[in-house]
Amino acid sequence: MVETLRLFLPEPPTPMSIRALLLALAVQAAPTSDSSVVAATLTARALESRGAYGFLTDLVDHVGSRLSGSEGAEAAVSWAAAQFAALGLEARREAVLVPVWVRGVEEGEVLAGPGRQKQPLALTALGGSPGTPTGGLDAEVIEVASIAELQSRGAAVKGRIVFFNHPMAVADDYGRFGELRNRGPAAAAKLGAAAALVRSLATASIRSPHTGQTRFAEGDVAIPAAAISVEDAQLLHRLLATGPVRVRIVLGCRNLPDAMSSNVVADLRGRERPEEVVLLGAHLDSWDLAVGAQDDGAGVALVLETARLLVGLKQPPRRTVRFVLFMNEENGLRGAKAYALAHGAELAHHVAAMELDSGAGGPVGVSLKAGAGASSLVEPWLSPLVPLGAGVLLTKEASGADLTPLAVAQVALVELVQDHSHYFDVHHSAADTLDKVDPEAFSRASAAVAWLTYALAESPALLPRPPALAAVSPGSTK
Amino acid sequence: MVETLRLFLPEPPTPMSIRALLLALAVQAAPTSDSSVVAATLTARALESRGAYGFLTDLVDHVGSRLSGSEGAEAAVSWAAAQFAALGLEARREAVLVPVWVRGVEEGEVLAGPGRQKQPLALTALGGSPGTPTGGLDAEVIEVASIAELQSRGAAVKGRIVFFNHPMAVADDYGRFGELRNRGPAAAAKLGAAAALVRSLATASIRSPHTGQTRFAEGDVAIPAAAISVEDAQLLHRLLATGPVRVRIVLGCRNLPDAMSSNVVADLRGRERPEEVVLLGAHLDSWDLAVGAQDDGAGVALVLETARLLVGLKQPPRRTVRFVLFMNEENGLRGAKAYALAHGAELAHHVAAMELDSGAGGPVGVSLKAGAGASSLVEPWLSPLVPLGAGVLLTKEASGADLTPLAVAQVALVELVQDHSHYFDVHHSAADTLDKVDPEAFSRASAAVAWLTYALAESPALLPRPPALAAVSPGSTK
Repeated sequence: MVETLRLFLPEPPTPMSIRALLLALAVQAAPTSDSSVVAATLTARALESRGAYGFLTDLVDHVGSRLSGSEGAEAAVSWAAAQFAALGLEARREAVLVPVWVRGVEEGEVLAGPGRQKQPLALTALGGSPGTPTGGLDAEVIEVASIAELQSRGAAVKGRIVFFNHPMAVADDYGRFGELRNRGPAAAAKLGAAAALVRSLATASIRSPHTGQTRFAEGDVAIPAAAISVEDAQLLHRLLATGPVRVRIVLGCRNLPDAMSSNVVADLRGRERPEEVVLLGAHLDSWDLAVGAQDDGAGVALVLETARLLVGLKQPPRRTVRFVLFMNEENGLRGAKAYALAHGAELAHHVAAMELDSGAGGPVGVSLKAGAGASSLVEPWLSPLVPLGAGVLLTKEASGADLTPLAVAQVALVELVQDHSHYFDVHHSAADTLDKVDPEAFSRASAAVAWLTYALAESPALLPRPPALAAVSPGSTK
Repeated sequence: MVETLRLFLPEPPTPMSIRALLLALAVQAAPTSDSSVVAATLTARALESRGAYGFLTDLVDHVGSRLSGSEGAEAAVSWAAAQFAALGLEARREAVLVPVWVRGVEEGEVLAGPGRQKQPLALTALGGSPGTPTGGLDAEVIEVASIAELQSRGAAVKGRIVFFNHPMAVADDYGRFGELRNRGPAAAAKLGAAAALVRSLATASIRSPHTGQTRFAEGDVAIPAAAISVEDAQLLHRLLATGPVRVRIVLGCRNLPDAMSSNVVADLRGRERPEEVVLLGAHLDSWDLAVGAQDDGAGVALVLETARLLVGLKQPPRRTVRFVLFMNEENGLRGAKAYALAHGAELAHHVAAMELDSGAGGPVGVSLKAGAGASSLVEPWLSPLVPLGAGVLLTKEASGADLTPLAVAQVALVELVQDHSHYFDVHHSAADTLDKVDPEAFSRASAAVAWLTYALAESPALLPRPPALAAVSPGSTK
């Protein structure tokens, strides 16, 4: 059959035309139904228009970086509201009080040692870090590979710069080593350390430090904390093997008073059961070093493209689809908490939620966090996902940082799992830029999201809610 | 035969043990001779000790970056002299007057436009660039893809920032697009441009600008010139497609008065024909952004490792091997010119020269620039290079920037061609660091260099000199 149809393809066949063909085959193979027509329509429009890539390009080129509390974040709020308005959806700005952290000067160097010239360090402050005294600070470095090792060093940590080293090599290591950045500096501070340097959580490096949030509990001592590039981590490791090493750092970052910002929320009202809400979310804020093309411009674009595609259908789906662009996922989750608070009474009617915060990679499968029987409900929806590369139900449990506060209401979660093999090459670095996004793979992700959202909102049956026990599981590491 | 021998290998066989085995086979297959014993000795010692990697590690960790005129460059001179001394070779410091260029503050941003936030540019000044006025300069950007296109724009260039864009994708594009960096800013200055931005000459980017020399003829107007990262070039290109774009840059770089520095030269005196010189060279200086592990720390290490291996033989080769570590290859070639001037009378006795300035990749072949009949002389030397991956005589003509001034004396050139497929990922960027070097591949390069140097110095016959015509060919682009 493929052989016959190939005659109608332009030569040489492009990956797109092959996929469109496969899709057509898949749809034809399925029983003709309204749903299969909708699946084919959504998919064809997503792949042909590459609308998600268009939204993303517009966001990163016009708004740029958008850390909570910055001018860019407020520009992003206005931009997002305007995008929904252009689709005919009324967008609400829902108030969120956000932390404001600003970067300043950042310098570091390994001081000269016996027979050794000084060397610069490529570093960048971690979000939430206080600055150093003006003029910086210098201290001897102590290297540890874990928080347990840090604690075993006890008094040796006092007055030192703690260097958290680790061998992150693949994307899945992010969860494993993320606590060094999240909790390491605070643990070092408790032992009297002068500062902390964390090897970047990265799977590639061209001397590129990767920022991210580090957490100090309120009232606890906070110390200056920065990420260093993988290359610099390797340098420190080599030098420490030969003797004492002193490092000087200057960080001008600081925490300012909280500021008002917004989540941007828009509803596509359900035609039969408007009170039942399917939430599709992503986060509008990004780190300040780059335009956040993948984290999470891609998610924002997928939400908007889904809105565009669903608005373009002959009729809206049965349930309300609520598009939520959260503020402050990166350094506070304040938007997620504010949403859960503001909509507390409604959460019992949130029948499913899906967050998009895994970049712009092609879709590879679907995962769930729901009650018994959910799989059999979802399995019939997989057929249109097969030609997109995502027609598989994965055993991984669905999650989403901004969805964590919904757990108390036992909202069922769905996750589109995307290829993230190169996501951490640039994640939270200055290189999270548009050029890293493959428009074709991204268009497949957008087709998959649109279809899954539609299926969740249209299916007569509801996803069973996850058991209450699951509510205590911690949110994903960010 | 391999099958039988495999029984004696440890399980699993390592790449190294396989290569050692192949080498043993190759040597056994050749007629037993003094030369084959020397080849086996040099190769085994190079591969087993990984001595070149040791020299390189010591250079980059103790000396670091070493741009001409900097403290690092002088530290490198002392370090190199000490390395030769430790091998029992007396090193001479031969005077070179070098240009002194220093980097300062570097900032750039795309100014806000209609409906568009401002965006930072990742840039770095090109060597030789003057600084901007304090506080920087801003102007509208004009994009061109070639110097010819620049010139066709005529009066439109006046007062603008010229943006040289190009699609470099693979290492061999360096020669093709190099003139945009080398000559583009000067050509723009002649047309009254305010400044120049050149897309980095790079085959990979994590928002990493790559520096390099740009040339302004003495007496001509010089304008501020910087490299921007590939990502930023793509951003400018996209924005320019939508309308006018203004950029602001601040460069604190400046040219200072020339300073005295040195080439470091050491001879291993020939046992029979000491007046005949085989020159083995590399350059000691590096750009300032990184430690120059590949450019050209690797070459320096290969020279030193060859010295170490040849000193370790039972007797020195027939001719003198002269190890020359040139100063100022990167931004002036002053060391190469000073060497040719100081040794003018001797050049007629320079029977061959080989420069190492192509990184630390594995060896892939040998090329020549010599007279008729050179190939048949060299072919018998290839057998020990086969197991190293380099047993092929390539048609590419041998070259070497620091050897350019030797052309007047028709010195025959030999080049060990190395794998450079990832060389331009980090070349002239902050990421030219040790971690990019594969010690195993580098040890094979060092074995190949040592053997070729020995063969050149030991062979009873001399390489025929290249024809005089070749003397007018320009040096390689750097």
